[in-house]
Amino acid sequence: MNTPWYQQAVKHPDLEIEQQALVRQDQLTKPPGALGQLERLAVQLASLQGCLQPQVERVAITVFAADHGVVAEGVSAFPQVVTAEMIRNFSRGGAAISVLARRLGASFEVVNVGTVGELEPLEEVRDCRVMAGSANCCQQPAMGDEQLHAALRVGYDAAERAAGQGAQLFVGGEMGIGNTTPATALACVFLGLEAALVTGPGAGLDSAGISRKANAIARALVLHKPSAAEPLTALAAVGGLEIAALAGAYIRCAQLGLPVLVDGFITTAAALSAVRINPAVREWLLFGHQSAEPGHRMLLEALSAEPLLRLQMRLGEGSGAALAVPLLQAACALQNEMATFAEAAVSAAD
Amino acid sequence: MNTPWYQQAVKHPDLEIEQQALVRQDQLTKPPGALGQLERLAVQLASLQGCLQPQVERVAITVFAADHGVVAEGVSAFPQVVTAEMIRNFSRGGAAISVLARRLGASFEVVNVGTVGELEPLEEVRDCRVMAGSANCCQQPAMGDEQLHAALRVGYDAAERAAGQGAQLFVGGEMGIGNTTPATALACVFLGLEAALVTGPGAGLDSAGISRKANAIARALVLHKPSAAEPLTALAAVGGLEIAALAGAYIRCAQLGLPVLVDGFITTAAALSAVRINPAVREWLLFGHQSAEPGHRMLLEALSAEPLLRLQMRLGEGSGAALAVPLLQAACALQNEMATFAEAAVSAAD
Repeated sequence: MNTPWYQQAVKHPDLEIEQQALVRQDQLTKPPGALGQLERLAVQLASLQGCLQPQVERVAITVFAADHGVVAEGVSAFPQVVTAEMIRNFSRGGAAISVLARRLGASFEVVNVGTVGELEPLEEVRDCRVMAGSANCCQQPAMGDEQLHAALRVGYDAAERAAGQGAQLFVGGEMGIGNTTPATALACVFLGLEAALVTGPGAGLDSAGISRKANAIARALVLHKPSAAEPLTALAAVGGLEIAALAGAYIRCAQLGLPVLVDGFITTAAALSAVRINPAVREWLLFGHQSAEPGHRMLLEALSAEPLLRLQMRLGEGSGAALAVPLLQAACALQNEMATFAEAAVSAAD
Repeated sequence: MNTPWYQQAVKHPDLEIEQQALVRQDQLTKPPGALGQLERLAVQLASLQGCLQPQVERVAITVFAADHGVVAEGVSAFPQVVTAEMIRNFSRGGAAISVLARRLGASFEVVNVGTVGELEPLEEVRDCRVMAGSANCCQQPAMGDEQLHAALRVGYDAAERAAGQGAQLFVGGEMGIGNTTPATALACVFLGLEAALVTGPGAGLDSAGISRKANAIARALVLHKPSAAEPLTALAAVGGLEIAALAGAYIRCAQLGLPVLVDGFITTAAALSAVRINPAVREWLLFGHQSAEPGHRMLLEALSAEPLLRLQMRLGEGSGAALAVPLLQAACALQNEMATFAEAAVSAAD
């Protein structure tokens, strides 16, 4: 039997380049370690790109969008129609991620993995609807096996497009009213925690709303009894279409050797799903920020991730990752352009 | 008697613009507060620049450099000659801040406020030597009253040049082997803390070195008994030439209405000195990062500062501030370019 694509081997980082990058890092005109987290980042990018002069100038941003049947349980502060409205806003360049993508000169696309209704043709928006929104996971699996595999494949295709364009970094974003609910459910499954411990306000629930949401998640977990040992089944039972697409994209990026910068709570739930499906994917993931959503810290810890930014953001769309891109670019520039002690004739420490 | 220049009034931020910026912020297509710290930042920049469309595209970076007599006490991991060597490295573009300034397209200059020896003419380096390094504050005041005022004036002139060039943000950096020692001494004076509680490794002291440094600071404080109520006397007694120049620059920026992005431990000690000399200066200060030096957190707290980055850096030169500039630029772009709910026909929260 063939290994399914999502379990096939990922590319190996280049450990020889990593060693060489580390040696160079130690010779740069600064006290050892003085660039903090940026030093590890530059060496890691060199290792991933297999290149002593890593670069993150060509960035591909894909926002995956979908609707969620679980909004029927009153788990979101915003009406479901906002998913489609925001897709139009992305297309017209008015959303936060649109502004940030422009600033970065990044390639930008929105992939509709499954809004409730069909949308009119929109610039920069790709119609890849797998179903008319996921089902309400409090009543039935969010999606069937076939839909899950189709959604993973939507992500696969996005990663292929990014790599085909020569991207040096992939940023996945998401938009989907209600999607902190499936992300929280997945966090509960993979971290072995109860819903009440992980559930947060998402886009702005009050405390009654948070209780309602935690209750809905708890009911879905009782109904499906998803197991951390079966990540695909968990994704289908309590996940979401854009989350599955993100997981597929991350896995394919790792196979293609394209470093990924993960964004916020929902994308990190997708990243943990991807790592549970194919553990070596972890090596290809960098983390842009830690959001204000309480479950995000827990997911990051489970992934031993060191996010670059902590700005109390909670927007999604890929915005936190996009904001961290200049730090990756600066880490590369410092690694590539700083003089060594010998080149600059600067004395080392006593 | 005339009020000396450094105590004269600073410019008032525009509170009407601030209100208008806040109103616009609340209408942008995102859940309220979802951009976290960037929301306050954009509104603050609008208020400081007196402009509903704030911009931070033209950045002026000035690195103030000087030597410190207190290095005779064995307080630094690097030999004193490195101050001059690094000035040459700045001039040739090989230092971290040189690389970061290039990436930002910032204007860049190094101001020599007092190296031990005279330097040959160097590109981008301005010779403003006030004295041949400060004196050893364990034996006598680091500088006399005349030198202090000259150093403050060196900063004043740098702020004037930046404003004259049309800069929208001023970043001060510093270079001076041994300069975490005067910065720590000033922190002790202004925070009322003992040297042992504030002293850290600086550019890389081991624990014996840290003890030696704390002991030197404690002796200087006993010798001069500087008072928090007399910030100028404290600066002269246990400060440094580049620290005084930074304080002068910050004060003048505030008077000229030029927002300042403060860098790390030494520049924050200068910022607190400036605020103790002229409290309204505080409104013009933004804070780029929190460094790994333990005293930095204490200084930031004393200034009620919310730094943007925490990357465990401890380099100085203005590097942490330079790395935070893209966040300021992004905050402005989001404020200026995002669509409102009405413009984008996106529904608000239920």
